[in-house]
Amino acid sequence: MGIATVCLSGTLDDKLTAAAAAGFDGVEIFEPDLVAAADTPEDVRARCADLGLTIDLYQPLRDFEAVPPPLLAANLRRAEHKFQVMERLGADLLLVCSTVHPDSVDDDDLAAEHLHLLSERAAAHGVRIAYEALAWGRHVSTFDRAWRIVRRADHPSLGLCLDSFHILSRGSDTSAIRVIPPEKLFFLQLADAPRLDMDVLQWSRHHRLFPGQGAFDLAAFLRTVLDTGYTGPLSLEVFNDVFRQSDPRVAAVDALRSLLGLQEGASVDTALPAPPRLDGVAFVEIGAGPGADAEVAGALDALGFTRSGEHRSKPVDLWEQGSARILVNRAAAAEGATAVAAIAVESTDPPASARRAERLLAPILPRHTQAGEADLAAVAAPGGTSVFFCRTFFSGTDFSGTDFNGTDTDAGWRADFAPTGAPAETGAGLHSVDHVALTQQTDDFDGAALFYRTVFGLDPETPAEVAAPFGLMRSLALADARHRVRIALSVAAVRRGGWAPAVPHPQHVAFATDDITAAATRLRAAGLLLEIPANYYEDLDARLAPPPERLDLLRDHELLYDRDADGEFLHCYTPVLGSRVFFEVVQRTGGYLGYGALNAPVRMAAHRRDRLRRSA
Amino acid sequence: MGIATVCLSGTLDDKLTAAAAAGFDGVEIFEPDLVAAADTPEDVRARCADLGLTIDLYQPLRDFEAVPPPLLAANLRRAEHKFQVMERLGADLLLVCSTVHPDSVDDDDLAAEHLHLLSERAAAHGVRIAYEALAWGRHVSTFDRAWRIVRRADHPSLGLCLDSFHILSRGSDTSAIRVIPPEKLFFLQLADAPRLDMDVLQWSRHHRLFPGQGAFDLAAFLRTVLDTGYTGPLSLEVFNDVFRQSDPRVAAVDALRSLLGLQEGASVDTALPAPPRLDGVAFVEIGAGPGADAEVAGALDALGFTRSGEHRSKPVDLWEQGSARILVNRAAAAEGATAVAAIAVESTDPPASARRAERLLAPILPRHTQAGEADLAAVAAPGGTSVFFCRTFFSGTDFSGTDFNGTDTDAGWRADFAPTGAPAETGAGLHSVDHVALTQQTDDFDGAALFYRTVFGLDPETPAEVAAPFGLMRSLALADARHRVRIALSVAAVRRGGWAPAVPHPQHVAFATDDITAAATRLRAAGLLLEIPANYYEDLDARLAPPPERLDLLRDHELLYDRDADGEFLHCYTPVLGSRVFFEVVQRTGGYLGYGALNAPVRMAAHRRDRLRRSA
Repeated sequence: MGIATVCLSGTLDDKLTAAAAAGFDGVEIFEPDLVAAADTPEDVRARCADLGLTIDLYQPLRDFEAVPPPLLAANLRRAEHKFQVMERLGADLLLVCSTVHPDSVDDDDLAAEHLHLLSERAAAHGVRIAYEALAWGRHVSTFDRAWRIVRRADHPSLGLCLDSFHILSRGSDTSAIRVIPPEKLFFLQLADAPRLDMDVLQWSRHHRLFPGQGAFDLAAFLRTVLDTGYTGPLSLEVFNDVFRQSDPRVAAVDALRSLLGLQEGASVDTALPAPPRLDGVAFVEIGAGPGADAEVAGALDALGFTRSGEHRSKPVDLWEQGSARILVNRAAAAEGATAVAAIAVESTDPPASARRAERLLAPILPRHTQAGEADLAAVAAPGGTSVFFCRTFFSGTDFSGTDFNGTDTDAGWRADFAPTGAPAETGAGLHSVDHVALTQQTDDFDGAALFYRTVFGLDPETPAEVAAPFGLMRSLALADARHRVRIALSVAAVRRGGWAPAVPHPQHVAFATDDITAAATRLRAAGLLLEIPANYYEDLDARLAPPPERLDLLRDHELLYDRDADGEFLHCYTPVLGSRVFFEVVQRTGGYLGYGALNAPVRMAAHRRDRLRRSA
Repeated sequence: MGIATVCLSGTLDDKLTAAAAAGFDGVEIFEPDLVAAADTPEDVRARCADLGLTIDLYQPLRDFEAVPPPLLAANLRRAEHKFQVMERLGADLLLVCSTVHPDSVDDDDLAAEHLHLLSERAAAHGVRIAYEALAWGRHVSTFDRAWRIVRRADHPSLGLCLDSFHILSRGSDTSAIRVIPPEKLFFLQLADAPRLDMDVLQWSRHHRLFPGQGAFDLAAFLRTVLDTGYTGPLSLEVFNDVFRQSDPRVAAVDALRSLLGLQEGASVDTALPAPPRLDGVAFVEIGAGPGADAEVAGALDALGFTRSGEHRSKPVDLWEQGSARILVNRAAAAEGATAVAAIAVESTDPPASARRAERLLAPILPRHTQAGEADLAAVAAPGGTSVFFCRTFFSGTDFSGTDFNGTDTDAGWRADFAPTGAPAETGAGLHSVDHVALTQQTDDFDGAALFYRTVFGLDPETPAEVAAPFGLMRSLALADARHRVRIALSVAAVRRGGWAPAVPHPQHVAFATDDITAAATRLRAAGLLLEIPANYYEDLDARLAPPPERLDLLRDHELLYDRDADGEFLHCYTPVLGSRVFFEVVQRTGGYLGYGALNAPVRMAAHRRDRLRRSA
């Protein structure tokens, strides 16, 4: 598996180091990376050998074919220089992109003749040529036309390079790939992309993504290519404005993870354990520093949670209601700070989930388990959240809130908590965690989506965009097929500067209920119900014309509201607790599967007001 | 002059406050801003009155016309609610956008009938309707079709809203605007945009700019509209991802500045003094803290500058060579820090330049001039740079380097410097400042371009995009017609995060010479010539095939090279001095007007290596 250096940020050496550390065994050297480097081609060759990287491709040679004789002569001279560089690099495959030169002509015979000439020169240096149709090529913009030219040129050192972006961005029929003999398929470049209706060159240069992060059906594409008998490298070539400036060590891991996920999707044997079924969120652990811990506890109490357990060796409390469980960890966070420290999901096979995560390059977290405590496999997710896989209800036992067994490690993570003996509250009717919402740093967003998609086996839902008071937000929720585990990711469209970042990177846990007014009533009694402005209800009335008594109920309980063809969504919020965590209560009716994205700006403005009022 | 609240970041009150502070006298209230606000419409009305703002428009009412009866009934109910809100706001004009509703039909008669009905209802509330064609309207996407519908509807409370984006993005012929009677032109929205080949809705929602920041000929458009006799507000409606999240107080000033510049371009009398001719850069002042000051002085010395003067009251040195002058100010900067503190331009009429700057809302900087010192008008440019207007050569005197006159304030800024008596060096043949390059913060880039365009009267050149080692950079140079004053602005396409920001927001001063090898030789002797890698020259040979002796000369002097149809460009660099400033020497031959943008990544990688080596 390989990666083009253009995918990653930094100097050439930064890129090679990151690619090797992630586990790639090959690279495409993007010429501008070499040109700006102080290392000679011989140095780069040695460095790659040290790192265990083969140089699978040198790229690109542009604007070569079907040009007038003087330009052809200059192009051959240029190519000759590059062959020499490649010999010094120890690279034997050169990418030639279909020309965009204004002086080129629309003549496949001439293109074939010129490529034959180039291949003959290349062969003298032990170099082969991989010809690729750019989606915006002046005359050659489709792979099948490029293939006809390669056939016509008929030179053993000339073959085809297929690039998924150039093919799928045009919506080309990929079935014609099947006629290409595998020995003429010299190289395969893979890139995903979101569906954008824009100039294809700009789309390609700025918005490519790693496989699984975009909208292309790359698994089907890869399957088609592999079915030809292609056995060459699977190599990523992704131009992306964010990846170009983010830590290459992180991006390279995302890249390799994406290739593993893609191969699994294309039914290539990757030795990845299939994702075990997820049955829900076992618990969410919130780190809450001094001061913030009381705020979080107060909100949980107001929401009807019972503090049912105390960890046997750590300053961690267990709060429960129905199958919604929150751990409040007072150990790690700074004063006033809050964060979603961990998400534990119920897996039908926790060890297999953990093995899958590890195979997908998720960093395994060191644990400090004491004798008799559950050995939960934990991995680090992007954005500083840990992930656990567990089975709260084991061996068919329906575990009740008071039935602890502190000595049996088979009893799972709950055995680590000594029961407080607190009587279970009647509660407020919350029955489970509906979703966990995590705002990502700019550089982590696409990587986080890929992480939850591949490691958890979740499916991405439709991306959304919200015009929030302090800037545009993008969001993407992922869920399993049964909607037992939902992770909602969001990111500021522009990395925030100094102006009014109301709450930096907020996170929240949403609890599901069938009686949201009960929860709202309790929150209000505790002074912890976020106030929604009258203007919102007036607009709601204008837009959706709910029955008057329904509107009154919403207004009286500070509930936000959405509906679609499948059902309704009612939700309310606590204030921000500590630095950035809050709770949401949601009630879904019918088949509503969204998150009330339309209401997000109203919620954000309300949180802003609430913070200003509390700090006044 | 007005502005839509959607242009600015923050809560509704943040936006109103910023608009009023900048000097706007009207606003368009964007409905979602009101919906998220806790202030009632009555509160907002009172607040606007306090701030001296009229509410010129309430917007938008969407998807109203040409729909089946049940939907029409719901739409009329919705409109009725909005009329009530508008009465409470004291707003009497409602924007209705052409429908994009899937159930709407392509029937101008029906659209006119529905708009007539709406206008009749509106009139009962004292409200008028401004109908606007969205560029992506389902059936009505051009202003002339919207106008035909308005004519057909024939209601005194119904008129047209023209939006420059919707019209110019489609490349519509604007001459048909001339047939619209001014009393039916209810409102004018102005927005610029870069030329982008993409879905027009996405282009509109994310990439609009203030007038003068984009590629549209807004001056001609405005002239056409004003020639109809339109006397209503000129109001900005700009959706922009960066402005949405930047300080609204800064954005509002940019917005008003853009409207002043636009009116000047459209020959509206704005009482703006015409921009005086600029004759060059008088001096560049570099702030250099302890440690960095010696680095800067060392580089100037190596470049052949003479330390010719010392400021009479401040720790500032004057360095000169030809008409290139650098002030090194040791007062302001922190240890090791460097920055371009000020740029002084030679104006044929400094007071008029200063008045123009002030009228264009440039903040006037307080000065601490002592008796007998020159009273230079200084204004603050975006990004922390000050700007001075001066005449170094006054009253026809050709001022020589040793002819100081310390008592006559008419002698200009140089009289503030006591001559050091240092013999003028023979120098290295540098004769002037070629350009000043300033990297902007993300939020400042478009504002900085507008500032130099309007305040200095410079023309923007073609924007460039550079794939730099640590992320994509965008740049825009501005120059006067004679290329005496050139300012090159650049910005990271994605605001930088934690990964390897080699030099944060670098700035440099480029000096012009006719003998760059002399300058490079001196820099090398001082150990201050930035080293360019061999790979660069090998690629240059492959690409451009310069004569071998030419290539040797370039390589031997660490010179970067570019050429175009008009001429050649040779350039070399010093290391980064202190935190972020460096010098460039450039030699232009023929009519080359660029900046060697292609070489920027090579220079950046070289600076990165140089910094690592020096810190090792």
